[in-house]
Amino acid sequence: MTGSLTIVGLGPGAPELMTPAASQALAQATDLVGYETYVNRVPEREGQKRHISDNREELMRARDALELAETGARVAIVSSGDPGVFAMAAAVYEAIEDGEPAWRQIEITVIPGISAMLAAAARVGAPLGHDFCVISLSDNLKPWELVVKRLEAAAAGDFVIALYNPASKARPWQLRHALDLISQHRPGKTPVIFAQAVSRPEERIEVLPLEEAHGFPTDMRTLVMIGSSATRTLQTAQGTIVYTPRHAELADS
Amino acid sequence: MTGSLTIVGLGPGAPELMTPAASQALAQATDLVGYETYVNRVPEREGQKRHISDNREELMRARDALELAETGARVAIVSSGDPGVFAMAAAVYEAIEDGEPAWRQIEITVIPGISAMLAAAARVGAPLGHDFCVISLSDNLKPWELVVKRLEAAAAGDFVIALYNPASKARPWQLRHALDLISQHRPGKTPVIFAQAVSRPEERIEVLPLEEAHGFPTDMRTLVMIGSSATRTLQTAQGTIVYTPRHAELADS
Repeated sequence: MTGSLTIVGLGPGAPELMTPAASQALAQATDLVGYETYVNRVPEREGQKRHISDNREELMRARDALELAETGARVAIVSSGDPGVFAMAAAVYEAIEDGEPAWRQIEITVIPGISAMLAAAARVGAPLGHDFCVISLSDNLKPWELVVKRLEAAAAGDFVIALYNPASKARPWQLRHALDLISQHRPGKTPVIFAQAVSRPEERIEVLPLEEAHGFPTDMRTLVMIGSSATRTLQTAQGTIVYTPRHAELADS
Repeated sequence: MTGSLTIVGLGPGAPELMTPAASQALAQATDLVGYETYVNRVPEREGQKRHISDNREELMRARDALELAETGARVAIVSSGDPGVFAMAAAVYEAIEDGEPAWRQIEITVIPGISAMLAAAARVGAPLGHDFCVISLSDNLKPWELVVKRLEAAAAGDFVIALYNPASKARPWQLRHALDLISQHRPGKTPVIFAQAVSRPEERIEVLPLEEAHGFPTDMRTLVMIGSSATRTLQTAQGTIVYTPRHAELADS
């Protein structure tokens, strides 16, 4: 009997930001597959097998999960945030397209999750309150020229810009290049948000003007958001709020 | 005593896609404020007051909610999807910035929700698996020229494009213009997703090639997603899957 594969978005980390649909899918799975950090977020259950893999092997992990499902397992692949945004869902469909014909018979379900950008935005105000772009700064799977082209387009369109995967040990210079590029189009006072480990105990969120954003320590767990020409800061009793109003005008860029 | 204001994302509609954090905020509120359709999604609770307002009066609704909170109420404003994406969070901060100084003392919390784009993407595969733009097609609060500028930029950057508020009775022609504009940059076979009322009983999702997408019936409850040059369809036992691979190349545009 063919099993099933559910690609589960765990949300940003706090249990209260994981949907009941995700909890239910995790409870029903015979096998959990995922990167160690994410599998460890799921409470252990008797009889449920855990298959831990390295973070960089997404396609291998997808294939392993499909093979398990093919033999009858109810497999849940766990993903941080939303599995459809720079995460496991696309990897699973890539594996299916290039894989065994039988894999197209497996019932696949994607359970959406609170993505890092939505969680980070909620913590600082409403920076994504108007038109925005979402770009992965990783050039592991695309040429850096395409990243530059998209940053240029996002700047030309005066979009708020959310940057996933801004930096890692192997990619130390990309964020500085991106901020330099955006600085040619936007004022130095434009708010930039660095949101690390949102909703987890080690959460750290900083808001800096674009002209001072260079050199701020950033890693793979950080989401960076750069304001549009309309994005504003507001001081309240809770500190600095960042938001982008619903109304907008044509700005030079 | 000053009260509090929580801006709650209800998610796309299905109860299992609303986070426990949202449920808890709704349970603790003395007053619910929101558009009728969204307030009606929340089960009635003894002693909890419901303040229903028209959908177009976002700023008025935000002010009413802040006034209630100022007098000591624990107010929850309800929003469909995520309150930070073309929804109530930005309206609340606009109201605070232009409103009573005392409103800056009110404790404001934003509870993120599964936005329509994440819910819709999960139902068809992984169309947002790579870089994407999110644009509201409404020109109620911005000039149409800015929408055109952003569509051109999104096309030039070869982004997947998610379109919120694609059409309404008062705005019947904008989506056709947007699709015409994108058609000048992308092949006629590019997949376009029309996702209506995702996760609700009346859910309807259609995938059409860009060249046949004109004239498809669309309303305010519809989210439209247009693929990039890399977005693919895949036939499985579950029907047509749409996904954007994690790897990408520079394409002409």
